[in-house]
Amino acid sequence: MVTVNKNYLKLPGSYLFSNIAKKVKAYKEANPEFKDSVISLGIGDVTQPLAPAIIDALHKSVDEMAHAETFHGYAPDLGYEFLRNAIAKNDYQSRGCDISADEIFVSDGAKSDSGNIQEIFGLDNKVAVCDPVYPVYVDTNVMAGRTGEYNKERENFDGVIYMPCKEENGFLPEIPGEVPDLIYLCFPNNPTGGAITKEALQAWVDYANKNGCVIIYDAAYEAYISEEDVPHSIYECEGARTCAIELRSFSKNAGFTGVRLGFTVVPKELVRDGVELHSLWARRHGTKFNGAPYIVQRAGEAVYSPEGKAQLKEQVAYYMRNAKTILDGLSAAGFSVSGGKNAPYIWLKTPDKMTSWEFFDYLLEKAHIVGTPGSGFGAQGEGYFRLTAFGSYENTLEAIERIKNL
Amino acid sequence: MVTVNKNYLKLPGSYLFSNIAKKVKAYKEANPEFKDSVISLGIGDVTQPLAPAIIDALHKSVDEMAHAETFHGYAPDLGYEFLRNAIAKNDYQSRGCDISADEIFVSDGAKSDSGNIQEIFGLDNKVAVCDPVYPVYVDTNVMAGRTGEYNKERENFDGVIYMPCKEENGFLPEIPGEVPDLIYLCFPNNPTGGAITKEALQAWVDYANKNGCVIIYDAAYEAYISEEDVPHSIYECEGARTCAIELRSFSKNAGFTGVRLGFTVVPKELVRDGVELHSLWARRHGTKFNGAPYIVQRAGEAVYSPEGKAQLKEQVAYYMRNAKTILDGLSAAGFSVSGGKNAPYIWLKTPDKMTSWEFFDYLLEKAHIVGTPGSGFGAQGEGYFRLTAFGSYENTLEAIERIKNL
Repeated sequence: MVTVNKNYLKLPGSYLFSNIAKKVKAYKEANPEFKDSVISLGIGDVTQPLAPAIIDALHKSVDEMAHAETFHGYAPDLGYEFLRNAIAKNDYQSRGCDISADEIFVSDGAKSDSGNIQEIFGLDNKVAVCDPVYPVYVDTNVMAGRTGEYNKERENFDGVIYMPCKEENGFLPEIPGEVPDLIYLCFPNNPTGGAITKEALQAWVDYANKNGCVIIYDAAYEAYISEEDVPHSIYECEGARTCAIELRSFSKNAGFTGVRLGFTVVPKELVRDGVELHSLWARRHGTKFNGAPYIVQRAGEAVYSPEGKAQLKEQVAYYMRNAKTILDGLSAAGFSVSGGKNAPYIWLKTPDKMTSWEFFDYLLEKAHIVGTPGSGFGAQGEGYFRLTAFGSYENTLEAIERIKNL
Repeated sequence: MVTVNKNYLKLPGSYLFSNIAKKVKAYKEANPEFKDSVISLGIGDVTQPLAPAIIDALHKSVDEMAHAETFHGYAPDLGYEFLRNAIAKNDYQSRGCDISADEIFVSDGAKSDSGNIQEIFGLDNKVAVCDPVYPVYVDTNVMAGRTGEYNKERENFDGVIYMPCKEENGFLPEIPGEVPDLIYLCFPNNPTGGAITKEALQAWVDYANKNGCVIIYDAAYEAYISEEDVPHSIYECEGARTCAIELRSFSKNAGFTGVRLGFTVVPKELVRDGVELHSLWARRHGTKFNGAPYIVQRAGEAVYSPEGKAQLKEQVAYYMRNAKTILDGLSAAGFSVSGGKNAPYIWLKTPDKMTSWEFFDYLLEKAHIVGTPGSGFGAQGEGYFRLTAFGSYENTLEAIERIKNL
């Protein structure tokens, strides 16, 4: 008799952003007169079109697929060399990070990678996450059986080490009392928009090396870093090659949310239980994945071309102008806000002690603005709310005007 | 202290096709004079370019991505409705199968789906597979911990029910002595190229319903079916909605091996442990996957357009001419061959009692042809060898001539 994976049943409700989408859809159906005025600053989805250099690369590679001589079937397991070389050179070697092309695994996006990476570890590892945090880290560990039950009172899972990131500690995690095994860190942070200095990150690397931990470092937002002392990669820290895996995405720096491309770096020096984690991840990649589309990998390559770089710099600047608009507008309106300087997210304290979901409903009903309730990212996110800078400039301006007028 | 997933260490060596690729690369490097004469009839990768209707759809959707008004970011969790509707109508409803669009989950390919689907089941389920079989089914269950150790003598895994598919039983699995929980079936079959009649498949459906099993039915090769009594979908059988999940691919019917698109059907009536498997798979999809690229989903839609259908019918016919060429040529040369009538694979007995790998080396060295050793698909594949019809017609003719002249 078939049994199901009962770990799935521990998860309360559906995935956060699926929930929000359903709520917004229901609101629009019930209030068709406001259907077209709803502005979403909720899910971190980009709105600017793909840059011309990327469009060109896509057209060109589509044409290649139209002729037998230039057609491309199955991609190499770990990604095409042209892309892995471009990544190694531009994202790592140019910053002084000792990462080579064969330590890079191209994938269909950082969500898949951040969900799948836990598979190569034993079920007995203790997981530490920031709270609030991108829900995929915890949910996928729950699904694997690496946690206990959901604790309704604490609104989180037994057996997970939560590292509170609150106003009091500048939204930065502190070394936990209990030593974890796997430590998920995401900087610049989703959802708080906070950044970590190289010095502070070095302390985590040293801690991980000392205690045999592995850091899973999600750097999906590195393109938004504007401050000098904020590292773009964990491999800027000394010793990270023996304790850290880094996840990267093309979604936010190049607008690939609907194109799907990402990569994971697993240094060959990263060994646990006498096994190279690189070989385990290669085994997973080779067995359960069949490569990102050729045309998408060519699009990824164009991200690193001189034209691509220039165009994407402008695109990031466009979104960061939105971030500043939100940050300044909400500050002026008396909100307590943070983030938005090295990340496209603004984290605000809900007014009048509203819960995160109360504020969600309030904003949707009174201003027709969709944001993301902080509590959706963890218990410590309660009383906070996330707005993204990924809207159009016009919509962002309009949204801030509406909030100011509430 | 971090531990690794020790189940990975049970897997002997790397993924079959990675191994072959390495072997071929080494041969070419050692024998540069034959580098350009090597013909691959090995991995099931297509060689014909994408059909014009698909190229058009790709260009058109790439253009959409270039403008903010028509740009597409994150796709809906389970796939765009335009694609799911086209699939439901063309692949199911037109064949009298009761499958609706919301039972279809669009993915980046059948390899991912066939590897990931086991996650929604408990670790205590007993798995049955054909032997020989596509390695992903067993390998991913090993990685999850649903099997015992690798048994070197039997050359397979403890705790798995292997269903031999040999000449004696027409390469069709028989109901096993021990009742399994999860039953992987792939028809038309990879690697043997064998097909199953509707009547024989109905017996499996009845067995699964009677015993509470779940059939994971891989129909990646259904476009190659030429015989009337061979079902294209398991849902042509009565009662399959309560016992079967179906996996489909665009790789072989539309040449998408480098484009990446597939889907999985989970009927809502399929319940185990009181839980709809549909809801579990939706949870996995929503949490660990972020949709297939918009442009790729539009390309998938074009597969079902009148032009697309006509062009792809020709493409399949092209490959099936290759299959006939191989089948007839090898028969004439005195080989014992099967498959090739409802599938793009030809399964042959190695001559002179050579092992599968011996024949692999022999063909590579003497005729510069790459095939796939049957033993790579399981212990019962020893002494067999797979050739694919996915080469060009010219290469296929040339390869058969070379084999005849050996």
